[in-house]
Amino acid sequence: MELTRNEAGIETVLGVLKQQFGERFQTGESVREQHGHTTTWLGNQPPDGVVFARSTEEVSEVVKVCATHKVPIIAFGTGTSLEGHVNAAAGGISIDVSQMDAVLEVHAQDLDCVVQPGVTRKKLNEHLRDQGLFFPIDPGADASLGGMAATRASGTNAVRYGTMKDCILSLEAVLPDGRVIRTGQRAKKSSAGYDLTRLLIGSEGTLGIITELTIRLHGIPEAMSSATCSFPSVEAACNAVIATIQMGVPVARIELLDALQVKACNAYSKLDLPETPLLLLEFHGSAAGVAEQAETFGEIAEDVGGTGFNWTTSSEERTKLWQARHDAYWAVLAMRPGAEVVATDVCVPISRLAECVTASQEKTAELGLIAPVVGHVGDGNFHTSLLVMKDDPDEMARGRAYVSWLNETAIGMEGTCTGEHGIGQGKRQYLDAELGDATDVMRAIKVAIDPDNIMNPGKIF
Amino acid sequence: MELTRNEAGIETVLGVLKQQFGERFQTGESVREQHGHTTTWLGNQPPDGVVFARSTEEVSEVVKVCATHKVPIIAFGTGTSLEGHVNAAAGGISIDVSQMDAVLEVHAQDLDCVVQPGVTRKKLNEHLRDQGLFFPIDPGADASLGGMAATRASGTNAVRYGTMKDCILSLEAVLPDGRVIRTGQRAKKSSAGYDLTRLLIGSEGTLGIITELTIRLHGIPEAMSSATCSFPSVEAACNAVIATIQMGVPVARIELLDALQVKACNAYSKLDLPETPLLLLEFHGSAAGVAEQAETFGEIAEDVGGTGFNWTTSSEERTKLWQARHDAYWAVLAMRPGAEVVATDVCVPISRLAECVTASQEKTAELGLIAPVVGHVGDGNFHTSLLVMKDDPDEMARGRAYVSWLNETAIGMEGTCTGEHGIGQGKRQYLDAELGDATDVMRAIKVAIDPDNIMNPGKIF
Repeated sequence: MELTRNEAGIETVLGVLKQQFGERFQTGESVREQHGHTTTWLGNQPPDGVVFARSTEEVSEVVKVCATHKVPIIAFGTGTSLEGHVNAAAGGISIDVSQMDAVLEVHAQDLDCVVQPGVTRKKLNEHLRDQGLFFPIDPGADASLGGMAATRASGTNAVRYGTMKDCILSLEAVLPDGRVIRTGQRAKKSSAGYDLTRLLIGSEGTLGIITELTIRLHGIPEAMSSATCSFPSVEAACNAVIATIQMGVPVARIELLDALQVKACNAYSKLDLPETPLLLLEFHGSAAGVAEQAETFGEIAEDVGGTGFNWTTSSEERTKLWQARHDAYWAVLAMRPGAEVVATDVCVPISRLAECVTASQEKTAELGLIAPVVGHVGDGNFHTSLLVMKDDPDEMARGRAYVSWLNETAIGMEGTCTGEHGIGQGKRQYLDAELGDATDVMRAIKVAIDPDNIMNPGKIF
Repeated sequence: MELTRNEAGIETVLGVLKQQFGERFQTGESVREQHGHTTTWLGNQPPDGVVFARSTEEVSEVVKVCATHKVPIIAFGTGTSLEGHVNAAAGGISIDVSQMDAVLEVHAQDLDCVVQPGVTRKKLNEHLRDQGLFFPIDPGADASLGGMAATRASGTNAVRYGTMKDCILSLEAVLPDGRVIRTGQRAKKSSAGYDLTRLLIGSEGTLGIITELTIRLHGIPEAMSSATCSFPSVEAACNAVIATIQMGVPVARIELLDALQVKACNAYSKLDLPETPLLLLEFHGSAAGVAEQAETFGEIAEDVGGTGFNWTTSSEERTKLWQARHDAYWAVLAMRPGAEVVATDVCVPISRLAECVTASQEKTAELGLIAPVVGHVGDGNFHTSLLVMKDDPDEMARGRAYVSWLNETAIGMEGTCTGEHGIGQGKRQYLDAELGDATDVMRAIKVAIDPDNIMNPGKIF
């Protein structure tokens, strides 16, 4: 799908939206740049204007105006996606839904809630806490729930609670012609027709704008415990993970940090962990249950050469450990002043994980790159944080070569080029390699629903 | 989408397939009738011929022949679906995949396997048992996995293990033009493009024929326990279910039988359960874990008026109880010699379940119908087994009126007209009521992928 700027259409739409939205339609350079992509090595492509929408009806109005004049529309939540998802590749209008941030309904008995797309995961959890409920998906950033749905996000808790595809009961969305649809009701399951909920989840704003989400919740566990264990090799750590999952231990988080990442965290978070591969775990359940889970894991870890196994239910210690995990990005940045981090993510069958991580470490060494690894290893998903000087063209070329190599390697291991970041602009070239003719079916769906290609053009395809 | 028989095309295709498949293409009346629908009150609409396919390539060949002549294709697994899914509404060719029944790969470390679509769930579990693995979805019938995917099946274990949408990593499918696609690789999660896996799951053969499935597995739990508890009312039983799930007890099965169903089971299975609403549960986990789960449930049940709470880890007692649950259909049949059972299913938010079941009981009494209730109540899903004399037009009319009322009532309670049976032919009239304009998007997808409407025409829409 080739992209060209529709200058005349854009000009007209700018005038109409200014009139309709006044102060809530902005065209200043800094606002526009902030709504183009910033958290990636892809260049910033600002939209021509930004509408701060406050309701589904307003989103529908904006879409209708843009549809009439065939002008691109890009939904914006918090701008924390990582593959250029909010860049305006052919210009157009950014619809910022961050002011649509109401928790509309909480149904405690049904363990679900209805929210607007601009609600962030932390805000939702603050809202729910007093009712003993929580929303488990944690991609790191305090992203908006609409954006998390659009990119099929997941994160550290996915090994137990699934990804966004598993946590949403239904969606309300504005179609490319401005019509508003609802993909389901509030039943926990349904066999009624095509699964449009899952079709929109991960569609990256290319089929419609998500304006409301009905989300599955969980009761806050009675008890939580955390554990750490060091391993002589990535392979030993991965073997512990495989055995843990095969035993059916319902681990809530199981994260791998490679030796380089542990070193970075020690320095940044003032820890004294052994600088070898580390697993960091969290268990949820009854008081007896989390103790049993931790002990079972401890035995498994010891069997495969784990050392320094340590677990705690102390909230203070848990927070300290997980804070270090969450600060992994900042810890990496601090390793090399002036450098920037480029995050990439792949996911492979867990039986191939150790091989993939080890090969990745060898490849970065060969290319003279610094790239610590963190992984949601219960799912076979890992990230490398490539630490690069963006003004060094040679290093950037080596970085790009590495990312290509990593994606192709993961695909060759029956894995995927992205476990949770999405395709966006950055991974389009790998989609065909991974899925072949299936991408033709995706394109046919895109054309059927958005024939004028106005919904986030230049993404996925 | 109007249906007319393409007589000339069908005639041509019959000749071509006879030549290509010889004995494995059959046109005898009994084979054709057996491949039209039998397990519903909808009339039998046999296909014009049945191909017994043995490979993806053969399925693709048949589809290409049918596509050339615009002749309908209906996939057939075990024929156990309940809403007319395999009826040949405009004639055409049934592709019977029951001979494509190989378990192709088992990846124990990854907890997944690759199977052909004709493998049944029981056959898969027999194959896996020695490796300590199991596939959890249990819709009652020993259905084929391809068919279970096509109807988005679930059943008693869904409260813990999810539905078919949660248990499939990727699919291979033959498109309406004969091309073969694969919707994903073996990674446990992916954010690469549209979720075609979930689009095909529940598409009821209207978008393509599933020819291979990559399925998520689980380790066989170390321990299992079963429990029963009687309640003074459906409402009390539902309150126990709600509290159990809110507490985060990871119950593996939680089934409701209403008083009439208990009475039928007592008579048929020689039990002496109190003839009041009953919950039948199963817990999976460690030995300590299943004991704790059962005890927690027992306390909850007592709080809401449950009596006769009883739990056991004895395999013999568990089997006896669950056999009675699985024989519920036969127990109902035995209540009224000469009558047939028409099964229907709806699913509502669990907070509305007691109200919906109670209203249903009142409605059947008002209409003079016999309709015991069993429910996968952890999901808010229940079935009524309408016991009718098919040759009594007045009773059949009352039965139809009841089913319409039930679907509309469930939809009115923010529920769905089908939790697990699918739309097929029998529930098409409720889809628009439930999903409104969203069905236009489904139709657009159908037209984009199957422009000649040759894939199972007359189903869903």
